[in-house]
Amino acid sequence: MTEITIGVDLGGTKIQTVALHDKEIIGAHRVLTPTTGVDDVIAAIVAAAIAAMEAAGASTADIAGVGIGSPGHIDVVLGVVTRSPNIVGFNGPVELGPLVSKALGNVDVHIENDVRVAMLGEHARGNAAPYTDVLGVFVGTGVGGGLILGGKLRQGRGAAGEIGHTRVKPGGRICSDGQRGHLEAYAGRGQLEVRARELVSKGHRTELFKIMEKKGRTRLSSGVFAAALEDGDKMATYLIDDAVWALGIALSSAQNLLDLEAIVIGGGLGDRLGAPFIERIEAQIRPQLISPDNAPAILGTGLGDLSGAVGAAVLAGG
Amino acid sequence: MTEITIGVDLGGTKIQTVALHDKEIIGAHRVLTPTTGVDDVIAAIVAAAIAAMEAAGASTADIAGVGIGSPGHIDVVLGVVTRSPNIVGFNGPVELGPLVSKALGNVDVHIENDVRVAMLGEHARGNAAPYTDVLGVFVGTGVGGGLILGGKLRQGRGAAGEIGHTRVKPGGRICSDGQRGHLEAYAGRGQLEVRARELVSKGHRTELFKIMEKKGRTRLSSGVFAAALEDGDKMATYLIDDAVWALGIALSSAQNLLDLEAIVIGGGLGDRLGAPFIERIEAQIRPQLISPDNAPAILGTGLGDLSGAVGAAVLAGG
Repeated sequence: MTEITIGVDLGGTKIQTVALHDKEIIGAHRVLTPTTGVDDVIAAIVAAAIAAMEAAGASTADIAGVGIGSPGHIDVVLGVVTRSPNIVGFNGPVELGPLVSKALGNVDVHIENDVRVAMLGEHARGNAAPYTDVLGVFVGTGVGGGLILGGKLRQGRGAAGEIGHTRVKPGGRICSDGQRGHLEAYAGRGQLEVRARELVSKGHRTELFKIMEKKGRTRLSSGVFAAALEDGDKMATYLIDDAVWALGIALSSAQNLLDLEAIVIGGGLGDRLGAPFIERIEAQIRPQLISPDNAPAILGTGLGDLSGAVGAAVLAGG
Repeated sequence: MTEITIGVDLGGTKIQTVALHDKEIIGAHRVLTPTTGVDDVIAAIVAAAIAAMEAAGASTADIAGVGIGSPGHIDVVLGVVTRSPNIVGFNGPVELGPLVSKALGNVDVHIENDVRVAMLGEHARGNAAPYTDVLGVFVGTGVGGGLILGGKLRQGRGAAGEIGHTRVKPGGRICSDGQRGHLEAYAGRGQLEVRARELVSKGHRTELFKIMEKKGRTRLSSGVFAAALEDGDKMATYLIDDAVWALGIALSSAQNLLDLEAIVIGGGLGDRLGAPFIERIEAQIRPQLISPDNAPAILGTGLGDLSGAVGAAVLAGG
């Protein structure tokens, strides 16, 4: 078998790979992202790529190309991640493309921002496929966005799509970038956890951290929030209510400006909380539109947590 | 002389026409918009078109085409204004294109939304000309917007560009559309006047209404605000400070999402308050960007209050 394309979704926590042949996923693999420096991260990516090939019953020689979605600032031309603070060892420039290429026998490697790659995946093979004008919102540790306009991924001058840094409340909660009142400060899992710890330190009660421990986690993962919501935990409910409210403001403003056909909501929280979360966001957006009768379709992802890896493979021609 | 294109900017207060030949303005005319119904508005448009031709030393027979920018909802294909509440008689559908065409000897007539036409004008012949990705914000009675992306006017599904309905403050001031906290509620001249009257009724002092009377106006026009600001009027200063603040929030969020090359700020207030206003907005936007070092150019209009009429002529091929 030849002409297999590998897609790599490099995350702060996990590395997900897929092997695509004829646009179908024929193999996949997932490992934890090493926290021991660049060399180990590169080695893990290469091993996960080979594992996906093996799962597909193929060998490294069959790789036609590799696409990588990486968080942080990317130099697409040189294949360099210029800075990605969430991955240990990536605080300065890393020649991700060339290093992975060399380790896999000089195959073509393309890299792009992880969120934009996930949007590419949803547009090529997921729920955004029927639309030419669609915004993807990925609610994970942070809140990222990817814009497809006129059927093409909007790059702007290299940084388009940052819906997470829409100001939804002047003077509001502090965001990961130090500014106040951004969408990400209300809907990103990272800031939700900061807020939960603050509330606990003030004496408020929650099952969130007990559930976290029971699940053997060290972070309030999307799964922890989902379980706490199911249990009717008040703090989890309050925090997710706020996230829905903030998403409603940011997405209705974006819709009024862009008049999109659809908005796809994914990421860890989006995928894990699923349809009820998406429906609540839709209910927030609709009354805030200048044309409520002409609301965009509000959808979950079609590929779930494989959006990024599939999009990375699409980036490499898969 | 032949091949002259007429551009008409139909406003709630004024009708501005220009005659274009070889992309140059060779004639212009301005009249007050009749408040006595559709027939009189059509007659005034036709008279103003003919007056612009006469100012150019040409006659009706030389008209190659007419473009009209109109407020409200437009059926571009049929040339019908489906609803434009700010013009008397335009609360229901008006066959603006066909009626003007007939009155001028069956010339081609194109119509489009007034704000998008103004953006077309700025992009074709004004300060937006050097850019392929640029947002035009027209701060007048309301706050309208036009988006040029990839060198083309973004239509969306017919309603793109509504930057005025970006929510800048949840639970804030009531906007013209009844919603709370929109940019237009803080920066649109109409809502500024509502707010000024409220403050006066609560006992606050201002020279705004005295200046209005002295100028023989019945509304707080952009010129009234400009004069009050020059006099150091506290209420005018407070209201314009708020407008600048709101524009900073809405435009920085839009910039973070779209990564534009430039933002052009026009409309009555934008043009009348000029460079100091534009510079203050820029100073608000910059620190709110995710890439302050890569801020878009923030510019005034190149065509001033002729953006709309010139853009309308461009729409008709001029």
